[in-house]
Amino acid sequence: MAKDNLTAVLHGVEDLRLEQKPIPTIRDDEVLLEMDCVGICGSDVHYLVHGGIGPFILKEPMIIGHEAAGIVAKVGKSVKNLKVGDRVAIEPGVSCRMCHFCKEGRYNLCPDMVFCATPPCHGNLTKFYAHAADFCFKLPDHVTMEEGALLEPLSVGVHACRRGDIGVGSEVLILGAGPIGLVTLLAAKAMGASKILITDLLPKRLSMAKELGADFTYVIEKDVSEEENVKRIHAVMGSEPNKTIDCSGVQATNRLAMLSTRSGGCVVVVGNGPQNVSLPLVYSCNREIDIRGVFRYCNDYPTALALVASGKIPGIRKLVTHHFDITETAKAFETSRYALGDAIKVMIHCQKRDQNNSIKFQ
Amino acid sequence: MAKDNLTAVLHGVEDLRLEQKPIPTIRDDEVLLEMDCVGICGSDVHYLVHGGIGPFILKEPMIIGHEAAGIVAKVGKSVKNLKVGDRVAIEPGVSCRMCHFCKEGRYNLCPDMVFCATPPCHGNLTKFYAHAADFCFKLPDHVTMEEGALLEPLSVGVHACRRGDIGVGSEVLILGAGPIGLVTLLAAKAMGASKILITDLLPKRLSMAKELGADFTYVIEKDVSEEENVKRIHAVMGSEPNKTIDCSGVQATNRLAMLSTRSGGCVVVVGNGPQNVSLPLVYSCNREIDIRGVFRYCNDYPTALALVASGKIPGIRKLVTHHFDITETAKAFETSRYALGDAIKVMIHCQKRDQNNSIKFQ
Amino acid sequence: MAKDNLTAVLHGVEDLRLEQKPIPTIRDDEVLLEMDCVGICGSDVHYLVHGGIGPFILKEPMIIGHEAAGIVAKVGKSVKNLKVGDRVAIEPGVSCRMCHFCKEGRYNLCPDMVFCATPPCHGNLTKFYAHAADFCFKLPDHVTMEEGALLEPLSVGVHACRRGDIGVGSEVLILGAGPIGLVTLLAAKAMGASKILITDLLPKRLSMAKELGADFTYVIEKDVSEEENVKRIHAVMGSEPNKTIDCSGVQATNRLAMLSTRSGGCVVVVGNGPQNVSLPLVYSCNREIDIRGVFRYCNDYPTALALVASGKIPGIRKLVTHHFDITETAKAFETSRYALGDAIKVMIHCQKRDQNNSIKFQ
Amino acid sequence: MAKDNLTAVLHGVEDLRLEQKPIPTIRDDEVLLEMDCVGICGSDVHYLVHGGIGPFILKEPMIIGHEAAGIVAKVGKSVKNLKVGDRVAIEPGVSCRMCHFCKEGRYNLCPDMVFCATPPCHGNLTKFYAHAADFCFKLPDHVTMEEGALLEPLSVGVHACRRGDIGVGSEVLILGAGPIGLVTLLAAKAMGASKILITDLLPKRLSMAKELGADFTYVIEKDVSEEENVKRIHAVMGSEPNKTIDCSGVQATNRLAMLSTRSGGCVVVVGNGPQNVSLPLVYSCNREIDIRGVFRYCNDYPTALALVASGKIPGIRKLVTHHFDITETAKAFETSRYALGDAIKVMIHCQKRDQNNSIKFQ
Repeated sequence: MAKDNLTAVLHGVEDLRLEQKPIPTIRDDEVLLEMDCVGICGSDVHYLVHGGIGPFILKEPMIIGHEAAGIVAKVGKSVKNLKVGDRVAIEPGVSCRMCHFCKEGRYNLCPDMVFCATPPCHGNLTKFYAHAADFCFKLPDHVTMEEGALLEPLSVGVHACRRGDIGVGSEVLILGAGPIGLVTLLAAKAMGASKILITDLLPKRLSMAKELGADFTYVIEKDVSEEENVKRIHAVMGSEPNKTIDCSGVQATNRLAMLSTRSGGCVVVVGNGPQNVSLPLVYSCNREIDIRGVFRYCNDYPTALALVASGKIPGIRKLVTHHFDITETAKAFETSRYALGDAIKVMIHCQKRDQNNSIKFQ
Repeated sequence: MAKDNLTAVLHGVEDLRLEQKPIPTIRDDEVLLEMDCVGICGSDVHYLVHGGIGPFILKEPMIIGHEAAGIVAKVGKSVKNLKVGDRVAIEPGVSCRMCHFCKEGRYNLCPDMVFCATPPCHGNLTKFYAHAADFCFKLPDHVTMEEGALLEPLSVGVHACRRGDIGVGSEVLILGAGPIGLVTLLAAKAMGASKILITDLLPKRLSMAKELGADFTYVIEKDVSEEENVKRIHAVMGSEPNKTIDCSGVQATNRLAMLSTRSGGCVVVVGNGPQNVSLPLVYSCNREIDIRGVFRYCNDYPTALALVASGKIPGIRKLVTHHFDITETAKAFETSRYALGDAIKVMIHCQKRDQNNSIKFQ
Repeated sequence: MAKDNLTAVLHGVEDLRLEQKPIPTIRDDEVLLEMDCVGICGSDVHYLVHGGIGPFILKEPMIIGHEAAGIVAKVGKSVKNLKVGDRVAIEPGVSCRMCHFCKEGRYNLCPDMVFCATPPCHGNLTKFYAHAADFCFKLPDHVTMEEGALLEPLSVGVHACRRGDIGVGSEVLILGAGPIGLVTLLAAKAMGASKILITDLLPKRLSMAKELGADFTYVIEKDVSEEENVKRIHAVMGSEPNKTIDCSGVQATNRLAMLSTRSGGCVVVVGNGPQNVSLPLVYSCNREIDIRGVFRYCNDYPTALALVASGKIPGIRKLVTHHFDITETAKAFETSRYALGDAIKVMIHCQKRDQNNSIKFQ
Repeated sequence: MAKDNLTAVLHGVEDLRLEQKPIPTIRDDEVLLEMDCVGICGSDVHYLVHGGIGPFILKEPMIIGHEAAGIVAKVGKSVKNLKVGDRVAIEPGVSCRMCHFCKEGRYNLCPDMVFCATPPCHGNLTKFYAHAADFCFKLPDHVTMEEGALLEPLSVGVHACRRGDIGVGSEVLILGAGPIGLVTLLAAKAMGASKILITDLLPKRLSMAKELGADFTYVIEKDVSEEENVKRIHAVMGSEPNKTIDCSGVQATNRLAMLSTRSGGCVVVVGNGPQNVSLPLVYSCNREIDIRGVFRYCNDYPTALALVASGKIPGIRKLVTHHFDITETAKAFETSRYALGDAIKVMIHCQKRDQNNSIKFQ
């Protein structure tokens, strides 16, 4: 096994370093992974810029990265589901498996969750990484490693749509066309939504949404009133949405969601906004609209993988706009941070591109 | 049939008059009811004092009253479920039966709902009243007319608990111990909640709650911080509630609900507050707490009746603290409005008390 | 309005006659429809051949037909959702709207249902037909009348999939590739099923299934044991289905469904078999498999229409293999009855073909 | 710690021996329990008499017993929820925690489940026993050890009622008044069922059911036809049950369940019958009745404990009719096997009775 274990370690605000680290040892229920590629998420950039997110504050140096895929290099004694050489997507959070949340099938709420690149837990932008085998999902040959890494954001979209009971006949409003808005769009379409309108402040993002299958797009303009936005959205869709998924999470979109949704419908809040927001709660409650939050995902990786493997969402590849080698990590983060070259998703490769793909990723 | 049809008509703010009205004719699917008793609801008082609630503005004189029970005096041609002499509880809203809400089993959201004493629809504080037969529920002999009238607020409590999936093992926080808080308490207990803590600003109300079966009570004091209230509620319950039902609906209780509830739990909002409220949405959404509104009730009368008829909630009778004859309507409203004599629920009798009860109501 | 009201009336076993009938009058909540086309269903043929189905026995002459679309020719006084000239699909069952099933959103179980061509209720293979306006669904211009008629069987498929909670990630086994098996396949795919295997005794039917998008097909051969069929189905799918939809309904398929489905999964029974069947109930119950029946559909027409209108299931047109004019009704029934020319769905036209379509149906 | 570890070991058919066994060592996530009491279940007797149940065949000597409570004597290194001296109820099945069933909250379906006294896994009728700490539930002081042991059968009843969505307003038919029928009755009542009718072949058992709160009882007589039983059950209840729980599981009760239940209702099958049964499937499916199986329980211990601890089902104590010391195990099994002295539940004590109870069990 190679001795090289180049690793991206965040030491503090604006202090991301590439370092050699010892190759980790594995427990009986773990596998050692030779990492293939790792996508950059908004939260990674946020840690770089701010040193923390909400209650999660960087106090010790932390390996960054959590949207990843790798190759099994070594297998723990009790592992039955994987063997050396398997290509896997990595679900980055490992729960305690013993609390009532874990036992009830809501392990994403487990208070003892160990989640990649959420302080104080290390991430996996590194050459060798140890992970619980049951949170690794073997990729079929025709699925690329990059698609494996993309299962992470896609699982957020799948989870959001499931929380909202999106199904055939759903008329869906998605607020925000960033990466999470776009994967939510892909998931909602695959679940049979009959109409999807997606909004954003930036027309450019909406053209990608259109390409990925949005039925309608709508640009939120600064000087248009809330009431007017609601009216226009209804007019463009030709109906009131019964499901709204807020992928921005700011007060303006929270409100728009609650005001636009049909009586008896559902608002799913994925995005994270400020601590307190002013909301028209009585208006939504009197119409029996449910407001449901989303925290990461839970039992969604298998579904996200099934979506990709069955060819239902080829568009997901278009999200990756830029590729870098792990040695270019600084540049990769800069590209993602400032959306250079209209970057949507930036992928960092720990091995040579397409080395582990039977078909080229493009 | 008697010619007397004394009726309580609200002509405007602070202008409630007793008048003789013609006895209504009935359609083929309706019954004529000789009214027995009608409870006064907070909304009735609100119309008297303010002339409207939200979008519902009194423009024409309107008969008041909607928590009612009566005796079938006449039966429409196509009515099969009732006969003359039947004692019935009256579900006060009649939906269109044809829109998608009605067909999907959520008729409370029907936009063409005709609801007693909601402008421009007349209520039933009168001697003779016509109503759709399928929205009248025959009372067994051992259920009193007053209990029939109480099915109206009780149905709100049942609906709230159903919206919150209250069941065996639920640990429930109820915010507000007014009439709706109290019926919600009764419903939650009957559904098997293992612990219930109920709060109020007034200690007096909590003693009634205790009598009705609350496991814990908690007085909200003005100078205690939000964080401290959360901590103390958890301490008194010995755990975090997984279900919170906000029967006050003001910003302070909305917030307390969202902050107190366990991850993965549910907040049900029954009470109506101001148009906009400042809420810690990100905190509740990141813990996947659902927020669900309640609008009246839907398919809840049969359940409410089953609860009363099976003797599961004898305490409901204690809610009625005062009785008046219809000729004393003004005094009855005054009693309810100012909570004179610690009034909780005030009952107005259109016929002699207990005339239609085989057992005395007390 | 034309005086011609040629109508197909079933007088008894093997006695289907074309007759002139008076043009029906309409009630306030009805529309008069000038019929465009009517598909022949297996049940229509069954009535022709046997004079009854289960408890429904033909005692009086009955107009046949219930998979239909027409043009609004006249509008009842209280109708708001339609106007003269509207092209509509006709949901053939009109429920009472007042019983608890109707109020709870399960109107298909209404005991007072009036359902086309189910004795003693008339069907709509006729030139002019009166129907409840709220059970007519306006077709967008780009949807053909034939697709409107096909919403009837498609709604069965949608309902079956909903009863089975088919969704993204579902691995579905469909038993039987007749018309209902095929519409169920289309619906399951549209809902995001990740794998579908469909079986039949006839390889010919499976080639149509393949064309409509089945991932796998499997021919049930007479001399293969039950255990062996289960093994082979698992082998072909590469996994155990978590959802099985039995569109045949005979003992052999009931059993295969219960034996093939994964623990915790669900068996939906659409087809109708003999009164009593011998089943391995303890085996399915010990693995917590649900068995759910399907009776027609309920609130599924809007969804079926959304599927067709949004272009998600273009394959549905392929189901119509033969076209006849209403004057050729006898020949049409013969074609359907004996599957002449490999008939799948036979369409009878009450007006000239494509007269009411802006795009040609093909 | 005592050296005595007297243990009841089943060596083969009719060969149950008391032996000294080494005190087990514990893993980091386990506790060592000093056993207090163990109830005898029908399955224990079945292993004694037949040497196996279905696919589970006794091949090696196996410690018997699985309805148990004990005292924590030693705590594994990583255990956080328990400490030495804690009185606990023992959920007897420990799942793998890693398969998709475990992660989805249905761990009772885990194929790698280790379940007490199900070959080849040992049970806990012994003095010292090691168990996973997260499957031990600390009892409040006022709950007796015997009640702790009774949580096992009670959890089956809770699980059955949950699978059937029993709630307020449910009208429940329970078939069979053995121990499982009785705990199901207790659970259904606690969940708010408005009417419960329970049947049995033996009038004697029904008098206990009556004592525990059954609203109606019905003796199934041998010479009464199926149709007549259905009619009479409906007559006694005054309505058709919308929920039926079959706690016998034989063909006759399976059929009675499917024929008695209201359209749109649900049949839950708890009892285990023969491999194949002849059933009126088309009749139940055409009325959209769900048939749902029950396998043990899952996340039900906390609820069962809440029911007992909150005093909602004091009747559960009445189920224990006989007490024996572990040295009298043979006699205890004989009492249970032949229902000597009208035995319902027989309790075996590994320690002196009431030694660990602050209030006497009676």
